Amino acid sequence: MSSSIGHLFKLTTFGESHGPAVGGIIDGCPSGLKLNVVKIQQFLNRRKPSASFISTDRDEDDQVEFLSGIIDGVTLGTPIGFLIKNKDARSSDYNNLKDVFRPSHADFTYEKKYGLRDYRGGGRSSARETVNWVVGGAIASQILLQKGITVTSYVSSVGHIDVGADYLDVDSDLIYSNVIRCPISEKANEMEQLIKSCKANGDTVGGCISTVIKGVPFGLGEPVFHKLQSAIASSILNINTCKGVEFGLGFDYSRKRGSEGNDLFCVKSGVVGTTTNHSGGIVGGISNGQDICFRSAFKPVSSLFMEQRSINNKLKDVTIKPSGRHDACVLPRAVPIVDAMTAMIILDYYLLNKTTKISDL
Amino acid sequence: MSSSIGHLFKLTTFGESHGPAVGGIIDGCPSGLKLNVVKIQQFLNRRKPSASFISTDRDEDDQVEFLSGIIDGVTLGTPIGFLIKNKDARSSDYNNLKDVFRPSHADFTYEKKYGLRDYRGGGRSSARETVNWVVGGAIASQILLQKGITVTSYVSSVGHIDVGADYLDVDSDLIYSNVIRCPISEKANEMEQLIKSCKANGDTVGGCISTVIKGVPFGLGEPVFHKLQSAIASSILNINTCKGVEFGLGFDYSRKRGSEGNDLFCVKSGVVGTTTNHSGGIVGGISNGQDICFRSAFKPVSSLFMEQRSINNKLKDVTIKPSGRHDACVLPRAVPIVDAMTAMIILDYYLLNKTTKISDL
Amino acid sequence: MSSSIGHLFKLTTFGESHGPAVGGIIDGCPSGLKLNVVKIQQFLNRRKPSASFISTDRDEDDQVEFLSGIIDGVTLGTPIGFLIKNKDARSSDYNNLKDVFRPSHADFTYEKKYGLRDYRGGGRSSARETVNWVVGGAIASQILLQKGITVTSYVSSVGHIDVGADYLDVDSDLIYSNVIRCPISEKANEMEQLIKSCKANGDTVGGCISTVIKGVPFGLGEPVFHKLQSAIASSILNINTCKGVEFGLGFDYSRKRGSEGNDLFCVKSGVVGTTTNHSGGIVGGISNGQDICFRSAFKPVSSLFMEQRSINNKLKDVTIKPSGRHDACVLPRAVPIVDAMTAMIILDYYLLNKTTKISDL
Amino acid sequence: MSSSIGHLFKLTTFGESHGPAVGGIIDGCPSGLKLNVVKIQQFLNRRKPSASFISTDRDEDDQVEFLSGIIDGVTLGTPIGFLIKNKDARSSDYNNLKDVFRPSHADFTYEKKYGLRDYRGGGRSSARETVNWVVGGAIASQILLQKGITVTSYVSSVGHIDVGADYLDVDSDLIYSNVIRCPISEKANEMEQLIKSCKANGDTVGGCISTVIKGVPFGLGEPVFHKLQSAIASSILNINTCKGVEFGLGFDYSRKRGSEGNDLFCVKSGVVGTTTNHSGGIVGGISNGQDICFRSAFKPVSSLFMEQRSINNKLKDVTIKPSGRHDACVLPRAVPIVDAMTAMIILDYYLLNKTTKISDL
Repeated sequence: MSSSIGHLFKLTTFGESHGPAVGGIIDGCPSGLKLNVVKIQQFLNRRKPSASFISTDRDEDDQVEFLSGIIDGVTLGTPIGFLIKNKDARSSDYNNLKDVFRPSHADFTYEKKYGLRDYRGGGRSSARETVNWVVGGAIASQILLQKGITVTSYVSSVGHIDVGADYLDVDSDLIYSNVIRCPISEKANEMEQLIKSCKANGDTVGGCISTVIKGVPFGLGEPVFHKLQSAIASSILNINTCKGVEFGLGFDYSRKRGSEGNDLFCVKSGVVGTTTNHSGGIVGGISNGQDICFRSAFKPVSSLFMEQRSINNKLKDVTIKPSGRHDACVLPRAVPIVDAMTAMIILDYYLLNKTTKISDL
Repeated sequence: MSSSIGHLFKLTTFGESHGPAVGGIIDGCPSGLKLNVVKIQQFLNRRKPSASFISTDRDEDDQVEFLSGIIDGVTLGTPIGFLIKNKDARSSDYNNLKDVFRPSHADFTYEKKYGLRDYRGGGRSSARETVNWVVGGAIASQILLQKGITVTSYVSSVGHIDVGADYLDVDSDLIYSNVIRCPISEKANEMEQLIKSCKANGDTVGGCISTVIKGVPFGLGEPVFHKLQSAIASSILNINTCKGVEFGLGFDYSRKRGSEGNDLFCVKSGVVGTTTNHSGGIVGGISNGQDICFRSAFKPVSSLFMEQRSINNKLKDVTIKPSGRHDACVLPRAVPIVDAMTAMIILDYYLLNKTTKISDL
Repeated sequence: MSSSIGHLFKLTTFGESHGPAVGGIIDGCPSGLKLNVVKIQQFLNRRKPSASFISTDRDEDDQVEFLSGIIDGVTLGTPIGFLIKNKDARSSDYNNLKDVFRPSHADFTYEKKYGLRDYRGGGRSSARETVNWVVGGAIASQILLQKGITVTSYVSSVGHIDVGADYLDVDSDLIYSNVIRCPISEKANEMEQLIKSCKANGDTVGGCISTVIKGVPFGLGEPVFHKLQSAIASSILNINTCKGVEFGLGFDYSRKRGSEGNDLFCVKSGVVGTTTNHSGGIVGGISNGQDICFRSAFKPVSSLFMEQRSINNKLKDVTIKPSGRHDACVLPRAVPIVDAMTAMIILDYYLLNKTTKISDL
Repeated sequence: MSSSIGHLFKLTTFGESHGPAVGGIIDGCPSGLKLNVVKIQQFLNRRKPSASFISTDRDEDDQVEFLSGIIDGVTLGTPIGFLIKNKDARSSDYNNLKDVFRPSHADFTYEKKYGLRDYRGGGRSSARETVNWVVGGAIASQILLQKGITVTSYVSSVGHIDVGADYLDVDSDLIYSNVIRCPISEKANEMEQLIKSCKANGDTVGGCISTVIKGVPFGLGEPVFHKLQSAIASSILNINTCKGVEFGLGFDYSRKRGSEGNDLFCVKSGVVGTTTNHSGGIVGGISNGQDICFRSAFKPVSSLFMEQRSINNKLKDVTIKPSGRHDACVLPRAVPIVDAMTAMIILDYYLLNKTTKISDL
């Protein structure tokens, strides 16, 4: 159960950070989709540790190999097996961590849950796993695009530096114009300086990602226990270091009165819309045809390049200084991961909604 | 799919607000549990619209009838069917809403998704449904208690009034000492005044609920796609008007450096703990043995007792003034609902974790 | 998990034979279906213990009460909760069985699995539960009928008396012309005599049911692990006393050569068919557009009205003579149950197939 | 959905017969299992097309590569990714079948379901896929063995030649003493002659496999909708060419009276058993502690090496003579596949049963 996501469009994954490969199986991808493999690889490249100063130095080419489910570039409707080989794993970096639990890392919880763990690079708890998600999300995105649905995420804060602008006021074309993936360039510059200074100190810093889904039809979301916000949050909170999700006005909404918070209806060109979008495009768990927007909070990466006190598996105090390769700020690389997760969920709920009405059958 | 939650301990529900009854089926409740029916009813009573000024005047006795799965007060291991009759439904209150979509209500999205809807009292989108969840949560709680696990929620903010205290600094015994379910009495008073003033104006107000789970063993949570925070958030975001969830430091965590955010290990009486609990008791998606704590944001109820502009199903402008019965602030009644959802999830993941290690079989 | 069947059209049930009620929740029923409640009740009546000599004397009126999911006779798309009260339960009949395990009954296995059991009328192991399935199947049938799909079952053998005719050679209009539900009247007479003589001796007898599904479109069935025959067999083998299922030529097929067993293609009015239907309408796990036909074997009911040796829960030898009410031959009443299970599965796979091709989205 | 089997021990697979590889992911394998890789390969070798005259000449070494979930030969509790490369695929053999539908093959149904298909070697409908199942079953078997549970299958009939003996009267040590995998050597000889003569004619022949599961504890099986026989039959009927399954006396049971069919209880060394085992070890859907036994029917392989009439995708008549490589009788190679499927199901239900009683938690 642990390693599958989705109901009709379903991704199941495997892989440890320093094993021979990571990979997965996409089940339920509709047949007849002409895959744009170049775009899939572009999506993957966005998640790659770039040459940029702010990321890990690990150099993976993250080339996805498809093993099934595709003929002449077209999906067969059968499961799409894929793998990405782990090339630049320097497991020896982790030998000194074999018996040690790094603070705020999953070393300890994996050891307690399973009785043993793959200590090399965090094993399965590594964000290396997320490359699998991006493969799934990249394919889901191509189907969504055919239906006019797009998912766009960007870094909206790093530490205390916030874009300070609503998603409506940013130019999404600028997101990838800088290494931060923040569409407001002066803020991106500030964020970059902050990350640089953290990295210089061996420290790390957290931040937030904002996401907008456009073109979502009316009616997605299963009321009661699989509300659309529940499904999205569920997927996003699986991303390493994610600690919170909010929809529309989110936590700010909790401080409002109903009289200022309600979204009033309006009719534009015969289509029902709302004059505001405080609810973030989801009402009663179901998409209302407006943009769906949400924000995710990511804590700072726990791997520091400074000495930290910790304990080993004999419960003795130790001092550790990690020598693996890690990001000083995970936010820029998390952007395509949030996109991927969101795309998979929206597609899954799009498919689930195809059998809602007797008149659709 | 829409109406089930859980994997091994699973609740499936039915019911419209003004139908003959709501109810559900609890499947996977272990056999041999001596149910404390009085405590179940107490749990339900906490969710009932009280005589209190702040809630709806609807007078339901919310008496649960168990139809199966129990013999001589002990669970049989077979599904527990139950129902709660709808007694005080005044459907005529809603006749004027038959063709009208109330702003920020699910009227419109249900109509678009299903092509028709039960307009009486919101039908299935009503929070009436949550009484079913409390039945499930009340039973789950009794099993958890046998394992030393407790779930405690309280109102931590209403509008701009915040308890301003960490959960460690509040006395959970005081939660139910006031109608707000806020353990700090002076704050509770302020919140009460705020809600009263909103109600006087026909307005509503949102707020936040904080939750602490104590006694959770190491190892709950399925890494990768069913991380414990993902499972909890997924359940909580199904609660009507919930717009956000955060774990541990949550959104504040995103503003921290790693050097100040990491939870350092310590050993207390031979057991590994942490000196701080910024992560909220979950690391790598798995419980680390510390208290699990999270906070949920609820928007103000959208049913106002003031005139609002809206549209009808012919897309014409209308002015509505609801005449049903609604809460001015949903927070106090949402407390047991958050407790219930959390208890069901924790129990489900407790059960899932029983087959993790070969040495457990 | 135990008490749910289906993926998109999903039935979850509850109930012990002598509890206050049995019932269930149908989730995923498409909205906008005008339910024919009279036909649902007719379906239920076919399963009722009739006044006929061959069945139990228990007199249940089996009136289904719908509690949700329907407005003005039309499905809302929300879960349909329903219950059937247990009226004529004479639990005292079973007092003498409280500590005793009846041979080939589920008394013993329930006791071992759960540590306790509801001994009254077999509790949840009773065929009383199947009334819930018929509710689900009756609704599924109405949707299938709109798509031109029909499910027809009949008794094809009782003991050694076999209809001795292919399903193509029987007149399905005659199935309900006799109490046996066998379309060949002389065979029905023989079967009736056999059952009468068994009943006279306090004995019981088994038999087979044949089922034909007509109008199934091409393409139902999920290859590899949810082949259509797998899904059907899985549902049918849940019926009490069912011990085997075979498709098309079934076990006889295993004795054939390929050269005599293959179904050759032919084209009729531009549609691809086969000249024979040895495979029973399913090839590679997927419906091929021909009639789907299968046969199910039911062992004789284990409750005898003669003395039998058994043991009690202290593992001591006892002699029992059941005094409850039971069928001498379950076959006639199992016919609508097989129909119901089949209809639910076919509908579920019909819905699952709606998102197979990108061109369908 | 199509490509996963199991609830807690779950296998998801991918792969076309002539793609680069087949493979899968085993999720939910408990941690701490010391894998015997040699035994896994032995299990796989039993399924391999042997050098024997009776099988396809395709020469695959079927070497499984594990990609994750294992460290130092011990399972980590994380998903076990694996693949088996397709080495000896001669896709050109199938060029003449690109536009043609072979009788009783899945060519046609795949084309109708998906709108396109991989015609090379049957694509995903090929029995090549079953090598993945054997990997899953081989690992499941090792866990079961630690609990004293064994699964043993053998060929009990080929065409009209039947072992004519109860499973109790055969020596399971002799199963692999001949190429037929039939424990009674003279019958094995007859079967071999029959298969040889079929092969000589370009024909094929069906048969039956019998399976015995020993050491199953009391209580496996989820009553109502996931009865143990339902779960087993569901898995077995996914095996290519399988057309029927029966438990215990099976179809013969349907011809019995209750007075001769019931299994009477007896107590042996303080443990409750039965004097006969007509029910095949499952009562009320739950294992009763006796041997579980069932029989599966397999139709003859549809690929003949003789001319057959068929149609092409323009619905024109054609004559085909397949030139790929196929088994004349699939039974011997199906034996380990039945074993594998059975082992996975039994393990899954073993795990599901670990949380049944409150006293087990």
